[in-house]
Amino acid sequence: MADEALFQFLHYELMQYIYKSADSKETENGRNITKLENMGFRVGQGLIERLTKDTARFKDELDTMKFICKDFWTCVFKKQIDNLRTNHQGIYVLQDNKFRLLSQLSAGKQYLEHAPKYLAFSCGLVRGALSNLGVKSIVTAEVSVMPTILLQKI
Amino acid sequence: MADEALFQFLHYELMQYIYKSADSKETENGRNITKLENMGFRVGQGLIERLTKDTARFKDELDTMKFICKDFWTCVFKKQIDNLRTNHQGIYVLQDNKFRLLSQLSAGKQYLEHAPKYLAFSCGLVRGALSNLGVKSIVTAEVSVMPTILLQKI
Repeated sequence: MADEALFQFLHYELMQYIYKSADSKETENGRNITKLENMGFRVGQGLIERLTKDTARFKDELDTMKFICKDFWTCVFKKQIDNLRTNHQGIYVLQDNKFRLLSQLSAGKQYLEHAPKYLAFSCGLVRGALSNLGVKSIVTAEVSVMPTILLQKI
Repeated sequence: MADEALFQFLHYELMQYIYKSADSKETENGRNITKLENMGFRVGQGLIERLTKDTARFKDELDTMKFICKDFWTCVFKKQIDNLRTNHQGIYVLQDNKFRLLSQLSAGKQYLEHAPKYLAFSCGLVRGALSNLGVKSIVTAEVSVMPTILLQKI
């Protein structure tokens, strides 16, 4: 339990630092999101290399995606993705009903506007992991009550 | 194995970001170290709270220090401290013969000058953890071949 806390705390510090060190203008906000996303990308690249070191080659894209939902997600968030849907045309929806990085936020709707900065790093993580597995993608996140990570292949 | 990699990668990104976002002047260097140390401090505070949630009260300072060497260190670095020494007058030397955050650095002496920025966060971690356990301390790190964390109570 404390293991996952380490990641949460570190992620929080990272986020806070990026937001504090930059100007708090509206235009800066997008840039901070991008910074976090890029960091996630590099961490995702590194992680997936370690994780797939002894794994057999993936059959297809869906197989790759299942690996992300199970092994990769468990490595980072200590749980699997709860639901994976796809339209079989390159769009995948990964739903996590108890996303760790948001579970500390208050549940009220008024806090939803802060969600993007809590999600950017994780979107980057997935994009980086997929990138190293040969899948170019656009990863975005949506939060309703609990966050869903929506993945779109390009 | 990939679990510990997550921390390593994240730590690396954090360090790189702090060093890139600040000026690379000599005077700035100390400030960056302090920033990293402070981040470590807060993460350490948070972590120790989770870790000691169900732990019995510590008998004495040495008992506290043993907890840091075993449980706390294992939580963060996936291994225990290799050697704990004390002069029983408030100085503790914690020796880690295979410190994860430095294990990726080349072994040559010429790289030792870069070591402080790899150690600042961890010094903060220990200081933060001890602080929440009621032990005010000064934590410094020394690297010979492999790093030792030297702890001094004030």
